[in-house]
Amino acid sequence: MTTASALPVGSRFAPVALEHASRLLNHGPTIMVTSTSGERRNVMSAAWSTPVEFVPPRLAVVIDKNTFTKSLIDASGKFGICVPNVEGAKMARDVGVVSGHDEDKFATYGIASLAGPVLGVPVIETGCSAWLECRLIPEAHSEDAYDTCFCEVVSAAADPAIFRDGHWQFDGSRPTLHTIHYLGGGNFVSVGNAFSVGAID
Amino acid sequence: MTTASALPVGSRFAPVALEHASRLLNHGPTIMVTSTSGERRNVMSAAWSTPVEFVPPRLAVVIDKNTFTKSLIDASGKFGICVPNVEGAKMARDVGVVSGHDEDKFATYGIASLAGPVLGVPVIETGCSAWLECRLIPEAHSEDAYDTCFCEVVSAAADPAIFRDGHWQFDGSRPTLHTIHYLGGGNFVSVGNAFSVGAID
Repeated sequence: MTTASALPVGSRFAPVALEHASRLLNHGPTIMVTSTSGERRNVMSAAWSTPVEFVPPRLAVVIDKNTFTKSLIDASGKFGICVPNVEGAKMARDVGVVSGHDEDKFATYGIASLAGPVLGVPVIETGCSAWLECRLIPEAHSEDAYDTCFCEVVSAAADPAIFRDGHWQFDGSRPTLHTIHYLGGGNFVSVGNAFSVGAID
Repeated sequence: MTTASALPVGSRFAPVALEHASRLLNHGPTIMVTSTSGERRNVMSAAWSTPVEFVPPRLAVVIDKNTFTKSLIDASGKFGICVPNVEGAKMARDVGVVSGHDEDKFATYGIASLAGPVLGVPVIETGCSAWLECRLIPEAHSEDAYDTCFCEVVSAAADPAIFRDGHWQFDGSRPTLHTIHYLGGGNFVSVGNAFSVGAID
């Protein structure tokens, strides 16, 4: 239906068709939000997000209005979402506890990034299993009252070792690539193996 | 900080303090949305929800504007959220594939419910590990444009065998009580055991 985007040079991921983008977040993983404007860039962890529409693929992401990330998003109208895995849990923890206002967290924590193919936002592959580029849909009231930012996904890619054919492959063969889910209090949990209780769609 | 609510007669759960309510959904589990208005009631599964605020505890839940559930919520201004576990996965699947417009899914599928202590919405404990009662915060634009319903949690309870002291106890001792997360395509995944990569809060 939708043409997958090209990948940035150096990417080891595979494109994800836009009509499957919601599946990257459907099961509630912790994400990292990347942003850039002018010479500045940032990355922060976020536990609170959800798809809101399949096609066009739209998301709601809760980003505190007082964060440096939100100021960069307000200035640029775009952001990236990276989906850390078990190998990236420490990174997700690290970028979740300090503000990027006074330092470049990519440099501080040695986080390599690529420029997203459509919007040029930073996307992270090491320690992550997927990424998405998002264009903010400005909604002043939701952003102000609920810190809730709506956006549309314009490109997506995932590690084909764990997401392929439009589905997560949580079969136990690559457990360190499974997504992580934040419980609060410094604790994460990763998902186990997929199971079915009867076809749905 | 916040006084926990009383429990309905017959409940085997323990109250969850409202300042901890967000933790019930923080890691992105699949939920079931219950609703009632007049003589009608309904229950449907929903994969898309997220906390948006800790205190007061507020959530965003995506509920398609064309569902019977949404018509009951519009009429009553309230709904319940039940968090199914591995034992309840089949129930979550079943109530997710048919509309309650023409039948009472509680009766069809033999789902026992209690009346929530504050709002009287149906809450389900068998096959679930937690429930919350929510008051809709009417936001016509978000509901219309994004099917996104904001709400405030007014009571919450959880199975003390898997959630206690304000935290999920995903330590492997009760795996069938672990939450389930919908992957799409009829597949769920449950979470494994919690791990820490360094304290956060």
